[in-house]
Parts: sequence; C-alpha cells; structure tokens
Amino acid sequence: MRIGWIGTGVMGRSLAGHLLTAGHTLTVYNRSKEKAEVLLQRGAVWGETPASVAENSETVFTMVGLPSDVEEVYLGSVGIFSTAQPGTVAVDMTTSSPALAQRLSLEGTKRGLRLLDAPVTGGDVGAKNATLSIMVGGDSDTFEQMKPLFEKLGKTILLHGPAGAGQHAKMVNQILITGIMLSLCEGLMYARRAGLNLESVLQSVSGGAATSWALQNLMPRILKGDLEPGFYVEHFIKDMGIITAEAERMNLALPGTALVKQLYQAVLACGGAKKGTQALILALEALNGGGELKS
Amino acid sequence: MRIGWIGTGVMGRSLAGHLLTAGHTLTVYNRSKEKAEVLLQRGAVWGETPASVAENSETVFTMVGLPSDVEEVYLGSVGIFSTAQPGTVAVDMTTSSPALAQRLSLEGTKRGLRLLDAPVTGGDVGAKNATLSIMVGGDSDTFEQMKPLFEKLGKTILLHGPAGAGQHAKMVNQILITGIMLSLCEGLMYARRAGLNLESVLQSVSGGAATSWALQNLMPRILKGDLEPGFYVEHFIKDMGIITAEAERMNLALPGTALVKQLYQAVLACGGAKKGTQALILALEALNGGGELKS
Repeated sequence: MRIGWIGTGVMGRSLAGHLLTAGHTLTVYNRSKEKAEVLLQRGAVWGETPASVAENSETVFTMVGLPSDVEEVYLGSVGIFSTAQPGTVAVDMTTSSPALAQRLSLEGTKRGLRLLDAPVTGGDVGAKNATLSIMVGGDSDTFEQMKPLFEKLGKTILLHGPAGAGQHAKMVNQILITGIMLSLCEGLMYARRAGLNLESVLQSVSGGAATSWALQNLMPRILKGDLEPGFYVEHFIKDMGIITAEAERMNLALPGTALVKQLYQAVLACGGAKKGTQALILALEALNGGGELKS
Repeated sequence: MRIGWIGTGVMGRSLAGHLLTAGHTLTVYNRSKEKAEVLLQRGAVWGETPASVAENSETVFTMVGLPSDVEEVYLGSVGIFSTAQPGTVAVDMTTSSPALAQRLSLEGTKRGLRLLDAPVTGGDVGAKNATLSIMVGGDSDTFEQMKPLFEKLGKTILLHGPAGAGQHAKMVNQILITGIMLSLCEGLMYARRAGLNLESVLQSVSGGAATSWALQNLMPRILKGDLEPGFYVEHFIKDMGIITAEAERMNLALPGTALVKQLYQAVLACGGAKKGTQALILALEALNGGGELKS
C-alpha cells in the first residue's frame, strides 16, 4: 500500500519503520528533515509538505506534537486536506483534543476522506517493540480496514466509538496518571520526613494494594535523582489542558486532575518543562521548603 | 512458644491460625468471643482480658481496630502492661499512629518489655496465604528474635527503623493509595460522560503507564456496581487522619492526601462508611449531579 507518514519523532520513527518492514511504500514528512533520515535510508521517499505526502498516499498517518500542529498538518495551506483524494484514509496518532478530532472528521467527510483518531499508550519502548495500546475513534468500516496496519504497530487495538472517542480514551489514561504521580511524590516526601530508608519502603509497598506501574518504574528513578524523560512534563501539561477543556465542556468537576495540573504548573516554574513526569517531586519539594532531592 | 493473640478479626484470625499450625501454644482474646471460636476449636485457650493473655505469654501479638483500641489494650486497667513480665515481647500489628507506637515503646521499655510496631499490607487474602508485607519498627535485636514468627505470617518482612517506623512505612502505603483511588474515580467519571464503553477503556489502559493494582482489582468491581469491602472506607479515613496528624507534626504539606480525605468525608455523608474504598466514586458522583452508578 502507498502510505504517508507525517511526524517522525521518537515514536513516529519507530512506527513508520514497522510499516517499511512490512513492505509498504512510504512517503514521509517531518518539520526537521534529519529526524526522518533513518527512514529515508531504508527506502522511504521524502515529501516536501503534508500536502505532497497526501497527494502520493492512499493512507496517511500523522503523529505530531500539539493540537495546533495537528490543525496545521490537516487544515493548513499545504496541509493534508489541500490535496488528499476522496477515499483517502487519514489516521491521527497524536495525543490531541477530542473536539479537534471531531472537527477534522466532519471537515474530512465533506471532502470524501475518512478519518480516524488513534492515540497510543506504551511509550517509546512500546513503539519500538510494536506492543502499544492503540485507542481508536471513527467509523467501524474504516477501523476494520485499517486494523491490519494497526496490528503492525501495536498489540491492544480497540475501537472506542465515533470520531474523538480514541482521544477520549487516551484522556482517561492520562487522568489515571495524574493521581498516581501525585500520591507517589507525596508518599516519598512523607517517607523522607519520617526518616525512613526509601529503598526499603519501596520494597515493602511494591507488592500490595498501593502498587502501580509508576511506583515500580518511576519511583526508582526519583530515588536516584533521575528526572530525565520518559514522558515530558510539557506534554503531560498539554494533555491535562485538553482534559480540563473537555471536562468543562461536559460540565464535569475533576478536583484531583485540577490540583495536579496546578502542581505541574509549579514544576514549570521550577524549570522542569523538559524533565520527565516524575519531576512533580520538584513541586512537592518547593511546597515544603525545597531542594531535598539535591541534598 | 507461649504466644498471646489479641484481636481475632478477619486478618488476626488468619494470622493466629498460622501460629497454631506452626505448633505454638496460643492464648487468645477478642472483644466479641465468637470471632475467636474457630481458633478455640483448634486448641487455642481463651483469655478473659488482655491482661490475662499477657500473663500467660512470652510474646503477645495485637491486631485491633483504632489507635484508641490499641491504647486500651496496652494501657487500660486490664491491659497488657498491667501483667506482662519483664522480657515479654509485644507486637502491635494494627495500622495505628506512629506517635502512639513511640509512646507505647517508651512506656513498655520502662517496664522491661520490648515492643515492635508491625502493620501489614496485603489484605485478607495475604493474611490467609501468609504472603503479607510486614513493616516493622523497633530495635533490631527484638526484630531478629521475632523474625521466625513473622515468617509464618508474611513474605516481605522489613525493619524500617526504631519504634513507629513500621507505622510510618504503612502510612506511605496509604498515601500512595489516596491518589490512585482519586484518579481512578475521576477517570471513570470522565469515561462515562464521554460516552465510552467502560470495559473497553479498562482494557486499553490496563497494560500501560496508567496501570495499578487498584485499576486491575477495584475498577472491575465499580463497573459491576460492587462497592462492598475489601478495605473499609471508615478504616481508610482513620488512616488518612493519622497521616494528616503526623504530616502536621512534621510540618509537611500534602495537598493531594488532604483533598482525598475531604472527598472520603463526603463518602461518609453519602452513607458509605461500611463500603469499600472504591466507594469514593459516590463522592465524585455527588459532586457531579449524582447517582450514575445506580443508573
């Protein structure tokens, strides 16, 4: 199949690579061309704009940064919609706004295109090993048609409903993470103040009702003073912004998510935008007299 | 060994049973005698008061309800301290206040007794299968002496420091649970409002960075409308009260724990004291127009 891939960051690069491996013809575009180099060396063709990628593809995947980037890539003057032929399938794998996914689907349908939103969870390791969970929104015929391609990219592949539903499911995932990160950092602050050995406490609490992926994977990093991403604070704040906007639209109060968003704003104030989500500890430290992590 | 066991609720009954199986001589006391019946049938001897249990035992275990119950059992007019011989080891496995554990240890030491605080995590199933995590505070000689007995009761057995340190470690465990429960319920509220199929969402988010013991074990119960305990709301509120008091004493701000405590107060207001911790969903529902669980 002639496939287009727009957005060759860490995740996108791995995923597009799986499609090359599967024998598909790939046209790729990325804002900075050097991040597509490894794909070009493997035989992918460079497209100068999203429009030229769409012109040469039956199916276009997008995986970019912010909702505003998604908007530009689809609706911009050299965007996908400016050239895509009727019948083209466009799949947005960016974690983006459900409302935008609905709007793009409406606009695309008017042009005879078929759109899916299909954000993922599972991180760079999941992308590399094709073990991602892919959460899809859109019509079921298009979903079934794309399923063989999704199966090259991930393991758990579910249609969650009409346009936007994939994004909504991803937001549930992000909401779950908010509280886990908060209590992880509060637990750590308490343990330090109480003078406990942190490795021992981690061992005691890891097997029981308090355990989580984050406890097992991110707590050890914090204990080593490692705040590198993983998943960027600035991206997580973007997601919490989307959640907040959607919840407001749905008339839904989420006090925990609101609190955690505020505390991540404080992480930004501490210079933590490019740190990993475990940098929430910086906000808890700032709130409690500061800087124990470095001591 | 002549062992005393005070408090034969669901957890205590299982644990005392393991000591009988191991061949120890057991004297037991419980506020309501019928809950000790199964142990008495297996050869345990009834003690009329904590004092008479202590009188007949080299080692006394306690596992009761509230810190006020612990106080009564140790310091009351027919309490352990009124009869225990110098050299006796007393182990409190109740989840109780670190400050009280320190005070009992001081008082006990004056009388020539040796005290450990040793709360557990792992629930009724862990108690039954002797797979609990036991978090111990006290001196290391007494800990080493008691270790063979602890190994009959649990799997992960760690000394966390002096008197009170076991309770502090348990409080870290409970803090971790606060945020997990909050975001679990907020994620569910969001998913409902967005019109998603909840089982599908659970499946999509279970394998990744948002997963937790609670997601895998309590979320399915909420989806079935099952709010039965597990772990009682009123006991969890007790624990959050202890955390709040200790944090205040340590001059430590824990905004997430404080928020979750408030929301569990709302669960009480909804009549949820005897429900399981997953009943936090009732507070989120009340906050958002009510009653979706029953609809």
